[in-house]
Amino acid sequence: MFPPILKKISLFLQRLPGIGEKTANRLSLFLLKIPEEDLKIFGQNLIDLKRKIKFCQRCFNLSEESLCQICSDPKRDHKTIIVLETVLDLLSFEQGNIYQGVYHVLHGKIDPLNRVSADDLKINELVNRLKKEEVKELIIATSPDMEGEATAYFIKNRVKKEIWPQKKIEITRLAYGLPIGANLEYADYMTLKKALEGRRNLL
Amino acid sequence: MFPPILKKISLFLQRLPGIGEKTANRLSLFLLKIPEEDLKIFGQNLIDLKRKIKFCQRCFNLSEESLCQICSDPKRDHKTIIVLETVLDLLSFEQGNIYQGVYHVLHGKIDPLNRVSADDLKINELVNRLKKEEVKELIIATSPDMEGEATAYFIKNRVKKEIWPQKKIEITRLAYGLPIGANLEYADYMTLKKALEGRRNLL
Repeated sequence: MFPPILKKISLFLQRLPGIGEKTANRLSLFLLKIPEEDLKIFGQNLIDLKRKIKFCQRCFNLSEESLCQICSDPKRDHKTIIVLETVLDLLSFEQGNIYQGVYHVLHGKIDPLNRVSADDLKINELVNRLKKEEVKELIIATSPDMEGEATAYFIKNRVKKEIWPQKKIEITRLAYGLPIGANLEYADYMTLKKALEGRRNLL
Repeated sequence: MFPPILKKISLFLQRLPGIGEKTANRLSLFLLKIPEEDLKIFGQNLIDLKRKIKFCQRCFNLSEESLCQICSDPKRDHKTIIVLETVLDLLSFEQGNIYQGVYHVLHGKIDPLNRVSADDLKINELVNRLKKEEVKELIIATSPDMEGEATAYFIKNRVKKEIWPQKKIEITRLAYGLPIGANLEYADYMTLKKALEGRRNLL
């Protein structure tokens, strides 16, 4: 028995992932406590969102300009490219200032069961980019599952075939192993296997 | 490295209860997949929300009119009032068509530690309402904790003192006991104690 406008807001929130009816109702009521001016700005941002956001022409990150903030930053190392599945993966890398290169967002992984083929991803765009730009290293950071592995190998093979005859770009893959802070007890055996295979000398 | 408008949307979402940075980022990206027209309607609803929503003059439920949908429904039993702490409690009762009476929303419970006194709640308004309206039963459904109990007893005493000399309104409290579908193994001992005290003959 929400008033109509609250009902509409709650129903909209229920379309978001992980938000059920009870949570949506609770959030709707909480919105009533937020200053009117802030709600107004947020509402206007939502209205403008899709018009303002486009893909970066170079790396397919989200951007309000034709080049994203990363691609248009001259202080970054444009010769090192991390290839990622999603923009959320990119955000993970950007936390903590651990990487100074640039990115290429595939927007998915090759996944025949869900009818995602290589042509649905930004792989042709990556190959064209490598032909045009001066790149030293390609770090393939697709997810460590079957589809992510297949995508990584597909990209590696295309780069070897189409780019290496002209220029030799180093192709690497992220290390697999135990996550920092993890407890051996809770690690799955595949992670343990990879950690064992990738073991390094203690110097 | 979200574009500015997405960053603003994510920061706003992080103000909502239970939504951290990662969830807010994920929700912001999900909003990009929602049709522009739907985003526009939702954004406009947010902008209109605070202007449109007020309290029902009678029961202090949220409403777009001076009387809420429940208070203005002639088919409901206006002689039975459930006294509740929050609008969310009211929504719980309204699910499943289990109750045909009306409500009175206190907007909190007496809680001295958090500086909430009886005067901060809609208790005076309840007493005035009982003086004016023809009421048969008052079902006090404040929460089964110390503050909820104190609030219930405070209301009971005021009604006895101020209303009963003129008219005798029945005052009841919700039954305490095991929730339906619960497993004895997981019930806390206070609930078990209340369930034992309130046991009934199997006829």
